[in-house]
Amino acid sequence: MKYTNALQGKSLICTQDWKKEELDLVLDLALAMKENRYDHHLKDCLKNRTFFMFFYNPSVRTRQSFEAAATELGGHAQFLEPKSMRLKTEKTAGETIEDAAKVMSRYAVGLGVRILEDKIPYYGAGEALIREYEQFSSIPVFSMAHDKYHPFQGLADIMGLKEHLQELKGKKVLMVWGHGGLARSWCSVQEHLLIASRFGMSVRLAYPRGYDLDSDVIEKTKKNCENNSQEFSITHDMDEAYKDVHVVYSRNWMSPEAYQDGEFHKPSEIEKAMKHKEWICDEEKMKLTSHALFIHPMPVDRGNEVTDGVASSSRSIIYDVAENRLHVQKAVMALTMGKY
Amino acid sequence: MKYTNALQGKSLICTQDWKKEELDLVLDLALAMKENRYDHHLKDCLKNRTFFMFFYNPSVRTRQSFEAAATELGGHAQFLEPKSMRLKTEKTAGETIEDAAKVMSRYAVGLGVRILEDKIPYYGAGEALIREYEQFSSIPVFSMAHDKYHPFQGLADIMGLKEHLQELKGKKVLMVWGHGGLARSWCSVQEHLLIASRFGMSVRLAYPRGYDLDSDVIEKTKKNCENNSQEFSITHDMDEAYKDVHVVYSRNWMSPEAYQDGEFHKPSEIEKAMKHKEWICDEEKMKLTSHALFIHPMPVDRGNEVTDGVASSSRSIIYDVAENRLHVQKAVMALTMGKY
Amino acid sequence: MKYTNALQGKSLICTQDWKKEELDLVLDLALAMKENRYDHHLKDCLKNRTFFMFFYNPSVRTRQSFEAAATELGGHAQFLEPKSMRLKTEKTAGETIEDAAKVMSRYAVGLGVRILEDKIPYYGAGEALIREYEQFSSIPVFSMAHDKYHPFQGLADIMGLKEHLQELKGKKVLMVWGHGGLARSWCSVQEHLLIASRFGMSVRLAYPRGYDLDSDVIEKTKKNCENNSQEFSITHDMDEAYKDVHVVYSRNWMSPEAYQDGEFHKPSEIEKAMKHKEWICDEEKMKLTSHALFIHPMPVDRGNEVTDGVASSSRSIIYDVAENRLHVQKAVMALTMGKY
Repeated sequence: MKYTNALQGKSLICTQDWKKEELDLVLDLALAMKENRYDHHLKDCLKNRTFFMFFYNPSVRTRQSFEAAATELGGHAQFLEPKSMRLKTEKTAGETIEDAAKVMSRYAVGLGVRILEDKIPYYGAGEALIREYEQFSSIPVFSMAHDKYHPFQGLADIMGLKEHLQELKGKKVLMVWGHGGLARSWCSVQEHLLIASRFGMSVRLAYPRGYDLDSDVIEKTKKNCENNSQEFSITHDMDEAYKDVHVVYSRNWMSPEAYQDGEFHKPSEIEKAMKHKEWICDEEKMKLTSHALFIHPMPVDRGNEVTDGVASSSRSIIYDVAENRLHVQKAVMALTMGKY
Repeated sequence: MKYTNALQGKSLICTQDWKKEELDLVLDLALAMKENRYDHHLKDCLKNRTFFMFFYNPSVRTRQSFEAAATELGGHAQFLEPKSMRLKTEKTAGETIEDAAKVMSRYAVGLGVRILEDKIPYYGAGEALIREYEQFSSIPVFSMAHDKYHPFQGLADIMGLKEHLQELKGKKVLMVWGHGGLARSWCSVQEHLLIASRFGMSVRLAYPRGYDLDSDVIEKTKKNCENNSQEFSITHDMDEAYKDVHVVYSRNWMSPEAYQDGEFHKPSEIEKAMKHKEWICDEEKMKLTSHALFIHPMPVDRGNEVTDGVASSSRSIIYDVAENRLHVQKAVMALTMGKY
Repeated sequence: MKYTNALQGKSLICTQDWKKEELDLVLDLALAMKENRYDHHLKDCLKNRTFFMFFYNPSVRTRQSFEAAATELGGHAQFLEPKSMRLKTEKTAGETIEDAAKVMSRYAVGLGVRILEDKIPYYGAGEALIREYEQFSSIPVFSMAHDKYHPFQGLADIMGLKEHLQELKGKKVLMVWGHGGLARSWCSVQEHLLIASRFGMSVRLAYPRGYDLDSDVIEKTKKNCENNSQEFSITHDMDEAYKDVHVVYSRNWMSPEAYQDGEFHKPSEIEKAMKHKEWICDEEKMKLTSHALFIHPMPVDRGNEVTDGVASSSRSIIYDVAENRLHVQKAVMALTMGKY
């Protein structure tokens, strides 16, 4: 494989911002790094270098896998939380994002930001914030999940599907809402719709009425499908949805009513979601599929989004996808900020 | 010294789980690493590799020494706290330990867990939790102190005693309760009883009535002593206890009544302990010993467990033992997860 | 340049404690490291080694730049917060600073401490604490900002001024109070007075009545100026102050009345400061200067201490100074604790 400098300095906030060939390059390198975990020729490409991880929201896999990725490339990821920053807010004196971003650009070779629903006043505010960091940074800025997108999760999903299905073109993925007590973000789901449709899959989206996603993302997904001559459909009929699909992605997400008066209303979202207990991915429904794989970005809310039986079945690839987070992150870090 | 692969992949939750020869191997390597701190042939055996440290409870020396140990082996220890994990509990949706452990096994080469009294509903729950992590992990799991054991403290104790006493066989150690305001865990004390008796020391245990330790640990200690033809005794007479011993280990610990109705009752434990102000290791009592060494796992509660005079005397080896935490941890990490 | 072992093991709590030639050595090395960021011959001088950063107070640049500095020298900086230490206080049992410092000296090659106004009962208590750490440590102890001094900020200031002014001797710096809602520490300001006067600048200090700084620092600054045959003056006339200076440093600081009855009274300080809204560095006042540079230790409280126009002007060197934090810290770490 030929390594290129073409991606040096590039930010990644949504996979839709990158060309398909660029994403292919990432996936190829990620696979090579997975096959040769600790002994590839890029294992010191971040030596002596710092990557900042800025977590407005806590995280499990994202923190673990980004910090491990930097370590595996010979560098170091600094774990930063906003309580340890003194940023300006509407109510308190403090530093502007411009000042913070410009100084961080002097210390590090890259900056990851994570900001989700409960830290922002309205849907889209996280996207705006991360784009503002990008605007004032002279180093690559990554989304480590924000209200709208989760690019590294999308890349890990596609890497896992390629490993298990080989050819993605023409395969059908079902993205189906599941109930549960977590009022989850749209980011992983929306990123998956975009990247799956970019890679030639046909996309079926199923959810109870009232759980529409971002119409901008839906439009883009539709267009991606058209470009690949694939189908895109939305249904509210759960059983219909499972028929003949090759991949099932069951996941809870919040409704568009989650924000009211500039606040994220988690309890009312949970109450509403728990009324749809029939929306769970179980063995019966999986029988309707074309021997489908089960994928999920984790953490899995077992017993709500999906039964234990499905999540732990031989067709579940959740741990492989989780592992792939590490590999795609290493690949993107190496290509955008590595020295080689 | 011959390095072996025999310990690769092995967990360490209590030193009693390991063979005596395995512990000897650790101590030999730890000593070699201490003599050649930054320039031994294993100094890059964790290069590019991640060790997860999962702290349900905060820590001083354990965090500092494990993170330093990983650094000194060329790797990186990630500091993780449960607030940054979203684990399932009885009350909240979240991730199972099975899912967490399986994914962490994909990212790291080892996992340390620390969980003490105040984070669990009954004695033994920490032991159960850490064994559950071990069951689902494909990488070594270490106890960084839990309610029952503290294996690396035990190893550091023995390393320190070997350095200062040379021969341990037949030497007498006194483990004596001290009063104080901390309602301390049984873990360091119980680990010491087990490992001191494994290494051929005779063990005297002294405490006020009402401060019995785990009977399972006492039985194992008794058996260890028998196997080495050494004495084991329990006394409630403080002065009698100090006579002719070679080592004094004075430490506060909670009573078996600390847990009631699924909660850890710290204030009542402290109140009860503070009634026994005569239980302090002081210069007078040390005169009864055979010029004994003073050891303690730190932090020392000076003025309660022990007087300043004893803790800072020339016979106190507390700083040497604390330093040894680093060396035994490096040795175990190198042997169980290092690449060489 | 000749590297010397003369600084090995040396603490840095205030630049005034070091000889001028020693500070010159630091600045020369910092500049060399800046010119050759990732490829100088000291880039592995902390390999396998740990630097402890002990933050009683949170931090932005200090944490980022110290942790990055250790990474860039091949080592690792551990981020420690007092909540994860169990130190003795007047009210709770715990560990003495002597015990903590002696053990940390066994694990690491250096220790940085940050402690500011709101964590201490009176001005000077932070200085006393950090000197106590130094007394009991056998490794270098650094101030990462405390109530009295901020040596690395002072070094970064001077490095920035040298880069932009070349010759410092005889140049005039204005240190001027700015209003704002942060009740800021004296540390950066006082360190700057000392180091600017050491390097031959003449110093003008301007503030509203009631905002006197530490008289001990003022005396030392005066003496430094005398030694270099430079002027030192204090004025309460803002416009007079700006005339003909080459450098303007505008910064809010608390009044000497901030501490009362052993507590730091932030709200009353802010209320008092906000009455002096005319004390802001703006374009009009900058016109009175000799085309002065604007410097500030950041975070900048834009709109209070200084206008956006000045802070973002072509004469503002705030980002360069912020970047220099990294370089001077690398240089001091290499010289005091590096292996080469």
